[in-house]
Amino acid sequence: MTDVRSVSQPTLFSFVGGESGDWSIVAQTCQAGDPLPRAAFLDVRPGPAQPSHPAGWTLRGVVSNERYVERPERDRLVATQAPLGRAECTRAALIPIRKSAAWWACTQDERRAIFEERSRHIALSLSYLPRVARRLHHSRDLGEPFDFLTWFDFAEKDAAAFDELVGRLRETEEWTYVDREIDIRVAR
Amino acid sequence: MTDVRSVSQPTLFSFVGGESGDWSIVAQTCQAGDPLPRAAFLDVRPGPAQPSHPAGWTLRGVVSNERYVERPERDRLVATQAPLGRAECTRAALIPIRKSAAWWACTQDERRAIFEERSRHIALSLSYLPRVARRLHHSRDLGEPFDFLTWFDFAEKDAAAFDELVGRLRETEEWTYVDREIDIRVAR
Repeated sequence: MTDVRSVSQPTLFSFVGGESGDWSIVAQTCQAGDPLPRAAFLDVRPGPAQPSHPAGWTLRGVVSNERYVERPERDRLVATQAPLGRAECTRAALIPIRKSAAWWACTQDERRAIFEERSRHIALSLSYLPRVARRLHHSRDLGEPFDFLTWFDFAEKDAAAFDELVGRLRETEEWTYVDREIDIRVAR
Repeated sequence: MTDVRSVSQPTLFSFVGGESGDWSIVAQTCQAGDPLPRAAFLDVRPGPAQPSHPAGWTLRGVVSNERYVERPERDRLVATQAPLGRAECTRAALIPIRKSAAWWACTQDERRAIFEERSRHIALSLSYLPRVARRLHHSRDLGEPFDFLTWFDFAEKDAAAFDELVGRLRETEEWTYVDREIDIRVAR
């Protein structure tokens, strides 16, 4: 899912799994590739961070400019989306993914065709807005183990809709290029 | 200018200006925005690096996937380009640039239209290949002071052609979005 903010400066965020944090991890499922060590809590912090517990992990990513969204799509997204952190959004998900070498060997037009013309990533996601809010973080150029970290939040009553959204995305052609994916569900 | 390698993993490079290095800096011109401190030598190193002299500077960037090149363009570039480091290439240039907030607020289709349909960045550059070899490094998401670092090398006899190439690029609509640019010429 694509973040649609116009970012004047890229902003680094750290997702820290460990023994403390604002969010309790209620489920952690490895969808593809190597799993991540299990953690009890997740903390979302602006800037760089280290895990406070030696068994924990930290994933970092940058909120940056969009790579695929075109003007009419951005206009629809901006008109429809909600911000993160609404009071009723007591459920959230962190979904780190990595895409295969075959994806990254594609040219821009080839990736765009898979992403939207054939997988309808933006169009499909739009129908779940504003129930689901999200922020995309780019990690690949930082030398991180994942290429993207997407952070979502939603009300408890919309958890089934969120499940449906991620289920539909996982059936797309785009997802055949995902070679590592962890689905981390949290509550506060 | 766009690097056309298919990168299976992003690769970090550091450009270190200081009192020693493989390349002598023969000219350092601020084209737009704030200058960089003058340095006598430039060293190009894979991976992270620090300047060995306190007055020096280090610029970092990642060779990453292409952001604008389409399939027919990549095929032409791959068929035409030469690698860096040919024996006769005793002249080189490091050109760090930053683009404005207005550029980064554009959507992908808007940036592509400026970059190629209106500024002919790829088409124009192709006519200087293989005389000029180059590698593009992405810096913006690393929190660096520049968005891109491009490293070029060429034979002494092609220095005038390189001057013509950068002169023509600076006259394009794309360059109206460049708000900081340093032109660093080196020899070995």
